[in-house]
Amino acid sequence: MQQQISVITLGVADLARSRRFYVEGFGWTPVFENEEIVFYQMNGLMLGTWLQAGLEADMQRPNLATPGAFALAHNVPGQADVQPLIDRLAAAGGTILRNGDAPPHGGFRGYVADPDDHAWEIAWNPSWAIDEHGRVTFGL
Amino acid sequence: MQQQISVITLGVADLARSRRFYVEGFGWTPVFENEEIVFYQMNGLMLGTWLQAGLEADMQRPNLATPGAFALAHNVPGQADVQPLIDRLAAAGGTILRNGDAPPHGGFRGYVADPDDHAWEIAWNPSWAIDEHGRVTFGL
Repeated sequence: MQQQISVITLGVADLARSRRFYVEGFGWTPVFENEEIVFYQMNGLMLGTWLQAGLEADMQRPNLATPGAFALAHNVPGQADVQPLIDRLAAAGGTILRNGDAPPHGGFRGYVADPDDHAWEIAWNPSWAIDEHGRVTFGL
Repeated sequence: MQQQISVITLGVADLARSRRFYVEGFGWTPVFENEEIVFYQMNGLMLGTWLQAGLEADMQRPNLATPGAFALAHNVPGQADVQPLIDRLAAAGGTILRNGDAPPHGGFRGYVADPDDHAWEIAWNPSWAIDEHGRVTFGL
């Protein structure tokens, strides 16, 4: 069995508001979009932002709650890259949960919620290699 | 800016219960584990299962809710692979949300919640290529 995640789908209330956070904040480009969903081609998987009613109907599970018990992380090349990206995401409609500081386990990180309350950790982790295609490898 | 997700971290209540779902259900092998967190090396990113109190403290956001407004997906090579994996995940402590059937947009999929109520879509999507390393590429 492949150790593989194909898609992360986030439920959103307003596609344009969410799109602004990902396109202007992260600087990403959609690979597909229609009036229900926006897909971004990521590092070996897809990120989808789907109107929450569509996601709830597809999984046959209404009343999904926020903030959910999860976080996504985007790692950056250096410690000095963390806070500027947090600030840019906040300017694009995000809400800062924690400004960048050093956790006990090393590195540097902060957290921003996207406009639909989904949490992103922005982190510098010098132990985890990131290749030119954005693929991340575990290290201690 | 790389279109890159480095980590998906799921809040869990019981590490052993969660580990059983991912190790026995999906057949995955942890790359690191201690008494707080289990990491799995995935296709260009990490999956982390972290005791929810640790995740909440790190993001400075208590009272995370479930089920959250998101889904992860694991795509399989063929339509006939969908339901057997759903059944195996249920036997490893998951809860079936939707048995495999054909969505309007094509392919075949069902949903299973992990023991902490995080939803996994198990899907066959013939339009999206999966390479030998588990890297998924968008296609129509």
